[in-house]
Amino acid sequence: MNMVLLEPHLTASADQWLIDNPRQLKHLQQHLQLSVGDTLKIGVRNEQRYLTEVLYVSEQRIIVKPIRVEAIPEKLPVHLILALPRPKVLRRMVMDAVTLGVERISLIHSYRVDKSYWQTPFLQQLDDYVTLGLEQAGDPIAPEIQLYKRFKPFVEDILPCFITTEAAAYVAHPYAEAVMPHAIQHRCSVIVGPEGGFIPYEIELMQKNGCQAVCLGNRILRTETAVAHILGRLFI
Amino acid sequence: MNMVLLEPHLTASADQWLIDNPRQLKHLQQHLQLSVGDTLKIGVRNEQRYLTEVLYVSEQRIIVKPIRVEAIPEKLPVHLILALPRPKVLRRMVMDAVTLGVERISLIHSYRVDKSYWQTPFLQQLDDYVTLGLEQAGDPIAPEIQLYKRFKPFVEDILPCFITTEAAAYVAHPYAEAVMPHAIQHRCSVIVGPEGGFIPYEIELMQKNGCQAVCLGNRILRTETAVAHILGRLFI
Repeated sequence: MNMVLLEPHLTASADQWLIDNPRQLKHLQQHLQLSVGDTLKIGVRNEQRYLTEVLYVSEQRIIVKPIRVEAIPEKLPVHLILALPRPKVLRRMVMDAVTLGVERISLIHSYRVDKSYWQTPFLQQLDDYVTLGLEQAGDPIAPEIQLYKRFKPFVEDILPCFITTEAAAYVAHPYAEAVMPHAIQHRCSVIVGPEGGFIPYEIELMQKNGCQAVCLGNRILRTETAVAHILGRLFI
Repeated sequence: MNMVLLEPHLTASADQWLIDNPRQLKHLQQHLQLSVGDTLKIGVRNEQRYLTEVLYVSEQRIIVKPIRVEAIPEKLPVHLILALPRPKVLRRMVMDAVTLGVERISLIHSYRVDKSYWQTPFLQQLDDYVTLGLEQAGDPIAPEIQLYKRFKPFVEDILPCFITTEAAAYVAHPYAEAVMPHAIQHRCSVIVGPEGGFIPYEIELMQKNGCQAVCLGNRILRTETAVAHILGRLFI
């Protein structure tokens, strides 16, 4: 945690902001051994990031006072489209994508996504995963997250709205001949399939709707590893 | 699993190779529903990769026959140096580094590495994590892995042997002014610190011994995310 993310209502006062979330308190007390007079980075969700000074510390609460506004890290101009991962992997993938700074995340269905994944209680916790990712990155601005439970309508009706001559859509496909570009300067969509990959019909449908199938070299990466790898390659 | 890795003694016969490892059998039977006549990629550890044909399938064993030798994915010319991660994270980090194709991994101590991590039974399972990473990548050649329990002797005596005018060493440091290079063509060492980062003394000692401290932009990534991100950026 490199910043504590607070909801705006907790920062209504001009000079006394309250931290009383047990997870955040535990981290600040156990890992950072925070004490009065220390400085602390605070993000106000979807507003600003501040440097603050700690005024009061107890087991139940910490009170801080804002000192000054800090710069917010820029987002990557990326719409990340993920085949819904296994529940165990969902948390890490969303958290990492948020930390890496994607602007928008779409979780979509695909043939090799087990239908039961759409029933997982983890999907109710997406906001928590976003919070963890923002706190890791030091970024107070949450990306937009959308769920699309039907593949074909997503690819035919939604995806084309994100593809323009300046904004390509790249689908990572180990068997594509073209190679994922690098150090691009433009907005794009990046599509990462499920474990086992997209089926040929899905790749064809995406291509027919304006996507470029590209490979990442001759090693097949786990989906979670692929996301960080692709974003490291695309934006320098 | 995109290839099954076998020990050389299991492939001594010219035309009948035995798979009897329960983990591999379970994956092949449950996820791939393998049956007689199918083809299967087999890697022989530290030798070759083959396309094989399945001759026999039962719950206890699968027998395959080699058809032809296949190309092996190239390694990245990287020596990856990691502050020993938490036991829970160790498996994923080693597995991913192997999948991504690093040639050599050094696990080192650092001030913010809890000493208890060196006692974890997970360290006895490094070979298993390497196997998983190789099977994911389709690469039969294991990287070298070394452990260094003392930071200073590693930095002063071992690390300089890997640094030449053609082979730089980059230590990822969120507060460095220089930026991690991209699309390099040369061999290098990449050093990733523990959660919480290296302490200033450690950064200075590494710099004094020839390392360049470089940042990854203004977002602080988890160590596991940082490795895939850096390798995606360095090698295209």
